Amino acid sequence: MNAFISTLQKNVEVLTRPSSIEEFKYIPQEEKTLPNIGQLKDIVDLIKSIFFPGYFGVTGRNQNSQQYYTGVNIEKLYSLLDEQIYTGLHFFHTEDTREALKDSAELALVFIDRLPKIKRLLCTDIKAVFDGDPAARSYGEVIFCYPAIQAMINYRIAHELLALGIPVIPRIITELAHSATGIDIHSGAQIGEYFSIDHGTGVVIGETCIIGNHVRLYQGVTLGAKSFKLDDDGLPMNIPRHPILEDHVIVYSNSTILGRITIGHHSIIGGNIWQTSGVPPYSRILQRKAVSSFFVDGAGI
Amino acid sequence: MNAFISTLQKNVEVLTRPSSIEEFKYIPQEEKTLPNIGQLKDIVDLIKSIFFPGYFGVTGRNQNSQQYYTGVNIEKLYSLLDEQIYTGLHFFHTEDTREALKDSAELALVFIDRLPKIKRLLCTDIKAVFDGDPAARSYGEVIFCYPAIQAMINYRIAHELLALGIPVIPRIITELAHSATGIDIHSGAQIGEYFSIDHGTGVVIGETCIIGNHVRLYQGVTLGAKSFKLDDDGLPMNIPRHPILEDHVIVYSNSTILGRITIGHHSIIGGNIWQTSGVPPYSRILQRKAVSSFFVDGAGI
Amino acid sequence: MNAFISTLQKNVEVLTRPSSIEEFKYIPQEEKTLPNIGQLKDIVDLIKSIFFPGYFGVTGRNQNSQQYYTGVNIEKLYSLLDEQIYTGLHFFHTEDTREALKDSAELALVFIDRLPKIKRLLCTDIKAVFDGDPAARSYGEVIFCYPAIQAMINYRIAHELLALGIPVIPRIITELAHSATGIDIHSGAQIGEYFSIDHGTGVVIGETCIIGNHVRLYQGVTLGAKSFKLDDDGLPMNIPRHPILEDHVIVYSNSTILGRITIGHHSIIGGNIWQTSGVPPYSRILQRKAVSSFFVDGAGI
Amino acid sequence: MNAFISTLQKNVEVLTRPSSIEEFKYIPQEEKTLPNIGQLKDIVDLIKSIFFPGYFGVTGRNQNSQQYYTGVNIEKLYSLLDEQIYTGLHFFHTEDTREALKDSAELALVFIDRLPKIKRLLCTDIKAVFDGDPAARSYGEVIFCYPAIQAMINYRIAHELLALGIPVIPRIITELAHSATGIDIHSGAQIGEYFSIDHGTGVVIGETCIIGNHVRLYQGVTLGAKSFKLDDDGLPMNIPRHPILEDHVIVYSNSTILGRITIGHHSIIGGNIWQTSGVPPYSRILQRKAVSSFFVDGAGI
Amino acid sequence: MNAFISTLQKNVEVLTRPSSIEEFKYIPQEEKTLPNIGQLKDIVDLIKSIFFPGYFGVTGRNQNSQQYYTGVNIEKLYSLLDEQIYTGLHFFHTEDTREALKDSAELALVFIDRLPKIKRLLCTDIKAVFDGDPAARSYGEVIFCYPAIQAMINYRIAHELLALGIPVIPRIITELAHSATGIDIHSGAQIGEYFSIDHGTGVVIGETCIIGNHVRLYQGVTLGAKSFKLDDDGLPMNIPRHPILEDHVIVYSNSTILGRITIGHHSIIGGNIWQTSGVPPYSRILQRKAVSSFFVDGAGI
Amino acid sequence: MNAFISTLQKNVEVLTRPSSIEEFKYIPQEEKTLPNIGQLKDIVDLIKSIFFPGYFGVTGRNQNSQQYYTGVNIEKLYSLLDEQIYTGLHFFHTEDTREALKDSAELALVFIDRLPKIKRLLCTDIKAVFDGDPAARSYGEVIFCYPAIQAMINYRIAHELLALGIPVIPRIITELAHSATGIDIHSGAQIGEYFSIDHGTGVVIGETCIIGNHVRLYQGVTLGAKSFKLDDDGLPMNIPRHPILEDHVIVYSNSTILGRITIGHHSIIGGNIWQTSGVPPYSRILQRKAVSSFFVDGAGI
Repeated sequence: MNAFISTLQKNVEVLTRPSSIEEFKYIPQEEKTLPNIGQLKDIVDLIKSIFFPGYFGVTGRNQNSQQYYTGVNIEKLYSLLDEQIYTGLHFFHTEDTREALKDSAELALVFIDRLPKIKRLLCTDIKAVFDGDPAARSYGEVIFCYPAIQAMINYRIAHELLALGIPVIPRIITELAHSATGIDIHSGAQIGEYFSIDHGTGVVIGETCIIGNHVRLYQGVTLGAKSFKLDDDGLPMNIPRHPILEDHVIVYSNSTILGRITIGHHSIIGGNIWQTSGVPPYSRILQRKAVSSFFVDGAGI
Repeated sequence: MNAFISTLQKNVEVLTRPSSIEEFKYIPQEEKTLPNIGQLKDIVDLIKSIFFPGYFGVTGRNQNSQQYYTGVNIEKLYSLLDEQIYTGLHFFHTEDTREALKDSAELALVFIDRLPKIKRLLCTDIKAVFDGDPAARSYGEVIFCYPAIQAMINYRIAHELLALGIPVIPRIITELAHSATGIDIHSGAQIGEYFSIDHGTGVVIGETCIIGNHVRLYQGVTLGAKSFKLDDDGLPMNIPRHPILEDHVIVYSNSTILGRITIGHHSIIGGNIWQTSGVPPYSRILQRKAVSSFFVDGAGI
Repeated sequence: MNAFISTLQKNVEVLTRPSSIEEFKYIPQEEKTLPNIGQLKDIVDLIKSIFFPGYFGVTGRNQNSQQYYTGVNIEKLYSLLDEQIYTGLHFFHTEDTREALKDSAELALVFIDRLPKIKRLLCTDIKAVFDGDPAARSYGEVIFCYPAIQAMINYRIAHELLALGIPVIPRIITELAHSATGIDIHSGAQIGEYFSIDHGTGVVIGETCIIGNHVRLYQGVTLGAKSFKLDDDGLPMNIPRHPILEDHVIVYSNSTILGRITIGHHSIIGGNIWQTSGVPPYSRILQRKAVSSFFVDGAGI
Repeated sequence: MNAFISTLQKNVEVLTRPSSIEEFKYIPQEEKTLPNIGQLKDIVDLIKSIFFPGYFGVTGRNQNSQQYYTGVNIEKLYSLLDEQIYTGLHFFHTEDTREALKDSAELALVFIDRLPKIKRLLCTDIKAVFDGDPAARSYGEVIFCYPAIQAMINYRIAHELLALGIPVIPRIITELAHSATGIDIHSGAQIGEYFSIDHGTGVVIGETCIIGNHVRLYQGVTLGAKSFKLDDDGLPMNIPRHPILEDHVIVYSNSTILGRITIGHHSIIGGNIWQTSGVPPYSRILQRKAVSSFFVDGAGI
Repeated sequence: MNAFISTLQKNVEVLTRPSSIEEFKYIPQEEKTLPNIGQLKDIVDLIKSIFFPGYFGVTGRNQNSQQYYTGVNIEKLYSLLDEQIYTGLHFFHTEDTREALKDSAELALVFIDRLPKIKRLLCTDIKAVFDGDPAARSYGEVIFCYPAIQAMINYRIAHELLALGIPVIPRIITELAHSATGIDIHSGAQIGEYFSIDHGTGVVIGETCIIGNHVRLYQGVTLGAKSFKLDDDGLPMNIPRHPILEDHVIVYSNSTILGRITIGHHSIIGGNIWQTSGVPPYSRILQRKAVSSFFVDGAGI
Repeated sequence: MNAFISTLQKNVEVLTRPSSIEEFKYIPQEEKTLPNIGQLKDIVDLIKSIFFPGYFGVTGRNQNSQQYYTGVNIEKLYSLLDEQIYTGLHFFHTEDTREALKDSAELALVFIDRLPKIKRLLCTDIKAVFDGDPAARSYGEVIFCYPAIQAMINYRIAHELLALGIPVIPRIITELAHSATGIDIHSGAQIGEYFSIDHGTGVVIGETCIIGNHVRLYQGVTLGAKSFKLDDDGLPMNIPRHPILEDHVIVYSNSTILGRITIGHHSIIGGNIWQTSGVPPYSRILQRKAVSSFFVDGAGI
């Protein structure tokens, strides 16, 4: 046991010495301002039960009592948002930001006023996913089962929160969807109506993407940035650097589209493409034909 | 607080007005017929503990008492299946389907009778995964740790449930595996014995795929559909539209195989291929050689 | 009910008959030596709260009381490690391994002594991720939100446990990260300082990879093996079979690099590349230009 | 292990042999009609949060949103009552009872209509407890902290349920309070307004008690039955057999009042009394003076 | 915050200094031998579900599958008993006791063999409670709702464990019932068949009591000890010091019977009696008549 | 369903109308100042694990690491106390109290400074209980199992909190013990060293009691008040009204001692006594001898 105690005491000392902790400055713990991931999940779940009662959450037995549930859920949402927005506003506390001055309660109210708009957009996504999948039998199945809708719910919530100037919280909400679905949409991306993703695992949509209406992506599609410029301090510059996809574009699986380029409307990008330049409307891009041979021995590739 | 109350009341009104809710018809809540995702997880976990006692679930201290545990677990499984199959049968309630007439308890019993068959198939998958990985040291490690087995357990369960005509439930079960492993296998796909997937993230296997025995896929492989035909109502037609892979086919990472084409037996498809036409047996398909240059400045790509 | 009882009894009999169970030998349950996944998660969480107090776990209100928390957390970690290492050492019990003779408590202490080293390496990863993302605003955001860091924490812990000769446990720990992030790093891989992954879903890093310092990968990158040799018993041979990436290599999204080849330092591999041969330093590899046409009808691809 | 298996198998056989189980007939398990104690607790908690929002349960942030919470809580209450009343109606299933024919949903509605009446009575009890305790500082403290109120809430709920002819459920609800407070009030007892109990542990109020208004009991008071008559089958007869306490009676601690006797209004029964005959109004009953001596040695009593 | 840190550090020092901790010797924590109260509750619950399937625990859907549940429950019981008996045997570790040498697994098996006997005795208690309460409508109601049965289940389990020489565990089990029901029966007491307690709060039955068959107690009855003799070390002597109640004795509420005296068979002790001497069979003891007067002013007692 | 909706809406309206809610003024819910019973339980549990490590809570593996645990536990205690004391200070918000001005954090620190004193007193109680029970085998058994100690821990904590002027919280803490043990000690009572209670159910100790050292009570003992005087407003006056028990007094079971009287030191009060006048030192009080007869018929009492 002596070995245990000495190892314990030595490592406690090493791991708590100020130089060790300060190397990566961390949030003063006394203020308890860290976002709470469990509560952010609850926020998303509450919004789902407000938008789609019957599919998510506990709801009224019939249409006439639904108002009571929606009232309670919005009030719960308000409390949770107030608390979490506050933590977000305090996450970075460099002196030159004024974010901390904003009123988290006020922002929560503004967000609640945008719920009907968010719901309307999501309904277009549900229609687009349904229309694009021969296997889907009802909107309900799409709402209840499809990961793309799960990802879009989180994205559209996060996008509004980011638009209100709230830091960190939007990223956590989109990462929750990323972990559950493999779909990684930056909350800063601008995405139009009737957006759909099929299967979705591996999709990446970067911060400065602009996506029109009726766009459809398949699994593994990256809408990313090429190497980025550094500013005078040697830090990467946060400028528009991701693609623009105009209306009615389709991108097939595992393709990579990089840089601030424009994919013209009604274009189709085939699968497994590496695309770093823009294309005009109605383009059709396919991978070069593969090399084919016959397989003669057991050595594989 | 006045601002809060007025915002609350306004949005409760907007979000519960019939036009808003009816836009996307949802399940009458009184009948409480929605599938329960937690119980569907429990169903999968029970089957895992019945098939692989010792690795999953609580089991007997020795061989002689195992029967008590299996008896209890099958009876629990029966109760849960009865309840969840019922919810599945009521998920769509258009008048022309007769599904609701089927007896969920009876279907649960039929499913239980198929457990030995499902177990036998899974054991061939375990062998195939083990044989294909130099790092694997025992069947036990494969059963306990490999995401491909987790995905195959859910797929093979879901496939049998779909074969019994039960809607929605199979999709939820495969989506559970999709979320946990990144492997998205449609429960309608037909997959033979000794099937293996390596790593697996991003694999997509479409609804009408037919896969032979001893087939092996790597991460990121898509077996998908090209654009689909619309029927007279403008709805996509649910017809065979995904590839057929014959016995002993291997597909390397990130390749996309689209359409109702046939990949002949013993073929090898290299990685990052976009394949939309069939190939004869013993084919070997490789991506065209990339363009290579030397890197001179810091600008990256 | 008779149908239920007879189905129940028949299947209990079939599924517990020794031949059925023995087909895939499983761990003798009496010894209770199976690793516990929940406790392994707790181990990772404890280490995260020891390394990054304030971001993870419950911590002291200020710097001066942090020592109490670190002491308690290391002691809890020791107890959990002791128990789980023991289960790992007993997972395989073929007679020719001597692993079971090793002392799990002793190994737990050795591991604890390596915590400062693991923390130091992770701090270089955090810096690399931060430096590579224009959207990141602080180290704290990277620590708290980025899946790449989550994956690297699990990998670096697992790598040290594997280096101590502990079986199975390292794989479970990396699979936990794989499931949450879609990043699949084998605990045997050797990865240098300042390693970063962007987005990450679909990344696969094989067991015998050797990766230098300042290497950066994008989503969907595979560092894998080609077909492997079989030994005299027909079993795959566990020999070096994955790529070597020298310092300052960048690999863009969805590329596949296979086999024991060397990617020279400062090379850039573009996206969607299938690379099975080595390249010299400062190379730059791009996919051949795609075939482009205009889109004339509604038939898609 | 052989000893374990043989002991296990022998006792399973003995303890499940029909003669053993049938000795005490139990409820056919298939019908799943047993009351659920957890849900009965939830029912009481919901009623508490409906009656005293702010003290119990989750409530609205202000008066204006309280309606949403009350609506949701009453609807939850209705669902739980419906289910639990059903189980109560099926608990006894002798053929000559018609209870099972009653509609549990209908009874739940009738009960809900009586909530305002129950609340009104409880408010008189709160006032009586407050007025009787010099240490109490507000009604809120009495509602939140005093076991007598907890016992009266359960009793008054149970009393209404019993009045609706629902078996078993009332007893479970009063036993929940009995366990928590030591106060055992039979749900059949009739208790007027402004009833108070001080401290309460050990109080017993029998099934056929009739208690007027403004009555006050102290801890350990029994209002019980003397020996009871047997009917022709040798079974105890369920006839009026407990005391009647008229208005404004006070009974001090640990007194026992037995039999269908009447304690006249405004009477005071001192502590530690054994009373088996009635007394006229304004009576005052005290224990005979004790025998007093001096204590000379260490032998105690 | 300085005040907090100095208070924290000072009190940590004071409260962990060896003299402070050693003042009351406590169990060496490394051996982790403390009984676990949660597991002891589980043990009681398992036994309840083995004895009275349908009323407690999860049970089979019908008679034919009950064996599976009983098998699993007995095996779980065995594991829990093995562990908890071990902790009991190590609770006291003075050198002169040999308890630690006993085999906890062996004792667990012996206890399991006594389950049928314990069940048989409890069934007589159920009958006695039922026969004594005009309000009871079935054995099932008595099993499911009556605190006396809850107390007797715990007592009869604890009594057998004590008879096997296991320390501490029996007391914890009886204290669990004491806390829930207010009935405090020492596990050492000897209680015959057909024992019943009505209401029960405040009943105390001492360690060396001997109670015959068909005995009935009411709430608040104490069967206690008078002052006890000290041995040569000044410690109280653990000798027979509690009453003997012969068959068919009834004791009414709140009476106190002290010392090693004998209450002859068929005697009735009225309520609120202080009895320190034995009585012959068929005795009938009543409190002296109280002093009665009329109540003239508002001054109370 | 119409009946349900109309019942729902009617009762929501009735139960939330201001007149109904205001009848019993309740705490403004916006301020969220209600004490949290779960956290108060945690506070007691933390103190138990600080005082008696090894018996309660999670503790260090050995003496040398105990400091880390005590540090963490005291800091947790401080946070919880700060929060709960705050709620207590706001529970009553009449304008003339200044309690809300007190600093809850400061009071929490003062309380922490009194922990060593509280522990010292509890150790005397443990010794007294041990010395008084021939069946107790170690201090550890007393600490771990005896309800009297549980009640005294809660009382002594609550007494200190009350001494700091904190309202409501002390009562809740003593009611927690009351519910668990049946022992009801008002936090205002003054109790000396070496206090013991045997069995305890039904014991009541009033607010203004003064109890010396080495006092021992048995179950069912009441130290209460007679009727109390009313002030000019007709409210009961909160003046000294409970008994004084001098050193070395013993009171046997179920006795009731009422009013501001003094029981002289070394007195013994027998069981079932009703005592409303003081007695000199060394007194010995016994109930008058009961009336005894023989039992001739089956009619009972």
